Amino acid sequence: MKVKLETRLLGANELIAHNNRTIFSNQGVLVINLMSSPGSGKTTILEKTISRLKDQIKIAVIEGDLYTDQDAQRIEQQGVKVVQINTEGTCHLDAGMVSHACQELLADNPDLLVVENVGNLVCPAEFDLGEDLRAVVISVPEGNDKITKYPLVFQRADVILVNKMDLLPFTDFDVARVQKDIGLINPKTKIFFVSARNGDGLEEWSSWLLEQIHAKGRTKLM
Amino acid sequence: MKVKLETRLLGANELIAHNNRTIFSNQGVLVINLMSSPGSGKTTILEKTISRLKDQIKIAVIEGDLYTDQDAQRIEQQGVKVVQINTEGTCHLDAGMVSHACQELLADNPDLLVVENVGNLVCPAEFDLGEDLRAVVISVPEGNDKITKYPLVFQRADVILVNKMDLLPFTDFDVARVQKDIGLINPKTKIFFVSARNGDGLEEWSSWLLEQIHAKGRTKLM
Repeated sequence: MKVKLETRLLGANELIAHNNRTIFSNQGVLVINLMSSPGSGKTTILEKTISRLKDQIKIAVIEGDLYTDQDAQRIEQQGVKVVQINTEGTCHLDAGMVSHACQELLADNPDLLVVENVGNLVCPAEFDLGEDLRAVVISVPEGNDKITKYPLVFQRADVILVNKMDLLPFTDFDVARVQKDIGLINPKTKIFFVSARNGDGLEEWSSWLLEQIHAKGRTKLM
Repeated sequence: MKVKLETRLLGANELIAHNNRTIFSNQGVLVINLMSSPGSGKTTILEKTISRLKDQIKIAVIEGDLYTDQDAQRIEQQGVKVVQINTEGTCHLDAGMVSHACQELLADNPDLLVVENVGNLVCPAEFDLGEDLRAVVISVPEGNDKITKYPLVFQRADVILVNKMDLLPFTDFDVARVQKDIGLINPKTKIFFVSARNGDGLEEWSSWLLEQIHAKGRTKLM
């Protein structure tokens, strides 16, 4: 019974995600689904990325959280439009939630829409939101074994940001092992090693992201 | 429809959890449900705790993981009996899984049974396994806002271990704020500040745990 319902819910989600993708494509907005464990640094990376790109492109954000709007408040301080989704305990965003939340934001015709998912390395990986890119953050102090223990989210990632590289000297994190593990399950994914705290690697990440936004946005100019 | 099914599933879980609790109580075994985000250090804390206590008490472990037995292999090296539960993608353990897994372990009449849950700060909090103590690990590099952003797991915790205190000088982690936030939502919970890496705080935690085990185990002697 549980399986049947999940299949049906996932089926409905796929339909809405497909609809979202069509809308995003018609508008030429690049949409990122940003996922990670709690505390990997999604919001801080997003703050720093917005700060670097907001003079060049128009950015909008959907913040997914269980109950609070703490992250939305942080992002609003960057001067971009934010819509908060409180899932009231549900452990992931789904395409329907994003469909509702994005309407107001799309009216402003943004170039980039970032959807920051609920902090959870398991459930969000199963739900297509209609995004162009799945970005997964993993942080150095989380350790070496996360890729093999939580494979789905990394298998489906288009880009992986390894954050908190400033803590590398104080941990046993093995960069080569993590690169190898990612290579085995998802050799095509792009990897950036960054520190949201000291800014290392954010230039490379932001430049790459800007390229993706421009590629998607070409439809706007046509 | 979704709500109804969840209610029913949770109802069934409560019944099995109640049954587990009766069995654990009759045997005088203390059962801990160990929860955290991926990478907070549950397994390392468990390794170090077993190493400190295994000469004084008999310990058994249930390892919950999505697909791998990496953590079970680590725990087995400590010389204690381990049963692996692979949830095949499900984001939490439930009482039924624990009921099956514990049968072989209880035959050995352990004093302590630790159930290491799937790495996830959201879903495991909702499922009673029949445990005596809910222990939640949070680590310093995860940041200051986890208590307010993921309240349920901390509200229901009997004991909270703040791990990776060795990284405190290199982060913005605010010990006083986290203590205050825990105090607001769960003033009765016990808090230990530890470093599984350098051993700080593990003596206090292990001594406290031993007291709980002895208190529960008195039923064995009667």
